[in-house]
Amino acid sequence: MSLETLSIDRYDPETLEPFFNPENVAVIGASKDPHKFGHIILRNFRENGFDGDIYPVNPSEDEILGYTAYESVKDIPEQVDLAVIVVPPQVCNQVMQECVDAEVKAAVIITAGYKEIGEKGEKREQELKEIIASGETRVIGPNCVGVWRPYAKVDTLFMPEYKLQRPEAGSVALVSQSGAFASALMDWNAESGIGLSAFVSYGNQIDVSEVEIIDYLSRDERTNAVSCYIEGVKHGELFLEKMRDITKRTPVIVYKAGKSQKGSQAAASHTGSLAGAYNVYHGVFKQKKIIEAESIEQILDFSRGLVYNEQGMQGKNVAVITNGGGFGVISSDALASCGLNLAELPNSVQDELREVLPFFAATKNPVDVVGDATPKRYSDVLNILKDDENIDAFLLITLLQPVTLTSEIVDVLVDFKQACDKPLTVVMSGSEYTTVHASALEKEGIPVYPTPERAAATLRALYETAQRNHT
Amino acid sequence: MSLETLSIDRYDPETLEPFFNPENVAVIGASKDPHKFGHIILRNFRENGFDGDIYPVNPSEDEILGYTAYESVKDIPEQVDLAVIVVPPQVCNQVMQECVDAEVKAAVIITAGYKEIGEKGEKREQELKEIIASGETRVIGPNCVGVWRPYAKVDTLFMPEYKLQRPEAGSVALVSQSGAFASALMDWNAESGIGLSAFVSYGNQIDVSEVEIIDYLSRDERTNAVSCYIEGVKHGELFLEKMRDITKRTPVIVYKAGKSQKGSQAAASHTGSLAGAYNVYHGVFKQKKIIEAESIEQILDFSRGLVYNEQGMQGKNVAVITNGGGFGVISSDALASCGLNLAELPNSVQDELREVLPFFAATKNPVDVVGDATPKRYSDVLNILKDDENIDAFLLITLLQPVTLTSEIVDVLVDFKQACDKPLTVVMSGSEYTTVHASALEKEGIPVYPTPERAAATLRALYETAQRNHT
Repeated sequence: MSLETLSIDRYDPETLEPFFNPENVAVIGASKDPHKFGHIILRNFRENGFDGDIYPVNPSEDEILGYTAYESVKDIPEQVDLAVIVVPPQVCNQVMQECVDAEVKAAVIITAGYKEIGEKGEKREQELKEIIASGETRVIGPNCVGVWRPYAKVDTLFMPEYKLQRPEAGSVALVSQSGAFASALMDWNAESGIGLSAFVSYGNQIDVSEVEIIDYLSRDERTNAVSCYIEGVKHGELFLEKMRDITKRTPVIVYKAGKSQKGSQAAASHTGSLAGAYNVYHGVFKQKKIIEAESIEQILDFSRGLVYNEQGMQGKNVAVITNGGGFGVISSDALASCGLNLAELPNSVQDELREVLPFFAATKNPVDVVGDATPKRYSDVLNILKDDENIDAFLLITLLQPVTLTSEIVDVLVDFKQACDKPLTVVMSGSEYTTVHASALEKEGIPVYPTPERAAATLRALYETAQRNHT
Repeated sequence: MSLETLSIDRYDPETLEPFFNPENVAVIGASKDPHKFGHIILRNFRENGFDGDIYPVNPSEDEILGYTAYESVKDIPEQVDLAVIVVPPQVCNQVMQECVDAEVKAAVIITAGYKEIGEKGEKREQELKEIIASGETRVIGPNCVGVWRPYAKVDTLFMPEYKLQRPEAGSVALVSQSGAFASALMDWNAESGIGLSAFVSYGNQIDVSEVEIIDYLSRDERTNAVSCYIEGVKHGELFLEKMRDITKRTPVIVYKAGKSQKGSQAAASHTGSLAGAYNVYHGVFKQKKIIEAESIEQILDFSRGLVYNEQGMQGKNVAVITNGGGFGVISSDALASCGLNLAELPNSVQDELREVLPFFAATKNPVDVVGDATPKRYSDVLNILKDDENIDAFLLITLLQPVTLTSEIVDVLVDFKQACDKPLTVVMSGSEYTTVHASALEKEGIPVYPTPERAAATLRALYETAQRNHT
């Protein structure tokens, strides 16, 4: 097997199963010192209630956190499914050799000090690659944060929970070349209440590549969407070959860093990636029906949109309903800049709207329910528009500052969501009082955005989601 | 005086003083019903502890909230500085006539039902204009939310505080064509801890125009920056004539809505504005050194940046320091897309950095202090870069998820801010633990952004701020 093409020759997403559903785990480099990564990771498995056997490996200890410690992975009395390696770089290759010898199925190498540190590390990485190529163990890393999989209680993250909150179990998978970036994003996901099905930070990709991970997750029953941060793909040919099939199965959102020349140079020194000409990536994303996030916020925004509107948005026509005229103007701009349309409302529909709105209210789209709108008025308007075939999705602006828009708006929107299966996104802008109501809607599966711009961009992503299986 | 040019002929920012610093106030349409706007507004003045006399006007009451009520503004025993008019549209013109007769200095007409409701309202508005032209009373509105001025305890906002939080008194003025938009923004400002010097929602601009308000505020000692939402300017010639002098005095941030064709149509039905070709506006903003916000978030982001970095940013060269490599890549992209540069660090400086950083860390800009950076390491790096003349500003990324970056980073940054007068923006991405530290920094005058993209855009605004007085 050529070392250059290790990731390609071994490509087989099924073999990644032990990373995401291991029957047992060895933490190599486990420690009694609570500040050491090897302690935090071992404790994660214990405190999360990991179902299988847990084996700390540390030649200087007999037991750690109540578990018998082993001198080497080779001494563990059963075949190890998943080894988490968090040892100093000087001994890491030796430890990997022992994993290969012991026929460990999968290993996450957290340890850094490989090609990212220059010449000395490159030599070490080449040697590691040779060791891996000599066996069957699949490897994620080195130089990575690793894997978090709530359904299997796998958590190799070495950041304590008080600093990095873990999200609830959910249906978005997060895959990232940058560990720090993904950690921050995971922390945000936790705050926003977006559940994750898995998190993978893959580091130097010595064996398992980003495409193989995404491919595995696209087949995962727990995963409805995959969000990715990439600087550059490792194997362009794999990416080109596999991605279209992947996106047919599951929507994939990508944020590409290293777009500019300077950013590309920074990427080279960060992960050694050839970030390459951005316009080439942009073209490939489009061809492969990958949904591109243009800002960090969009990764989260799109994820929430997709989780709550799995079917996507079938056409480009959006109905905007607002109790603030300015927000109607901003929404019109935002939809236009995303290539979406304001749905045209037939005269007959506008006539019906006129019966439930003040005489001076705009009945053309955007429909202005005016500053003194009550929940009842929203409800009346939604009932009229619900089955209109000119409308593919709804962008509702419900500013809560006026006295008239009471908490009942939450019930109105929840009822509407149940009665109408077209995508619904809501904009609520404001502080505490607003946030309470936004959270209530999110809990009912209605995504809420702070600005029309972010809601419109999310609708665009939903449109692209529905388009994946066309052409 | 021609009615067409009322706003132009009367242009005299000094005459707006009674809106922002009235000696007494009449609330015309004051009510005992706690749900009525006329009650909420009267109560605002009382509860805020307005210093001058307060006169409710309501022909059906003898007293309201303990104040003697008057049948007409003409019955009030002294000259009225500020009248807030919140009566039904059918009697509003009559009330305005009485204000003119009583030589009221300034009136805010909250009442809607004018040109924004079509033909009938247009006729009513024309009549109102004739009444105003016959006297000296300056008028903001009709169809507006009015004025909030914490230093004078003026608050004509008819939304209760539990729904719309009032910010602290501060130095950013907010001027908006849309009342709802500005209310939401004010609510956000309160949450973000951005103090405001004034808030004006000006509605139909029958007399006082947006330019005149901005001009007044640019001369206001309490105001260091003016943020504006506009759909279309009312008098292009006034805008062109006055804005350059205004921006020489004070930085002006503008968010322009109605950029797209559809948005422009929505604006016409919202405020009757001719939003016009956006590229014309864009060109004018550039020529007049107006700082353009391209998203709603940027209005807030730029305001915070300007408040904490009044001097602006003298050149285009930014030093990026990060404990997450991916964020360095994203920052490089973001700076490039804003037309800013990564400052070039001389070899001698990089040599110094090498002494305080791990041997494999990137010492080129972005400076990667690596995932295990401590507050001490940040401090060492900042001390080396502090006086480097190649650097115009700092973009610091301090991800708090790793164990090593403890709360002491707050002290390090506060000390640095005191020792170095170049603009400093900080990026912290994460949930609760992160937010606590971000708030601590904000309280010390260091703006914190959730993403490098938003921090970079703010630095661009600071650069434009410093450029205002050049050429």
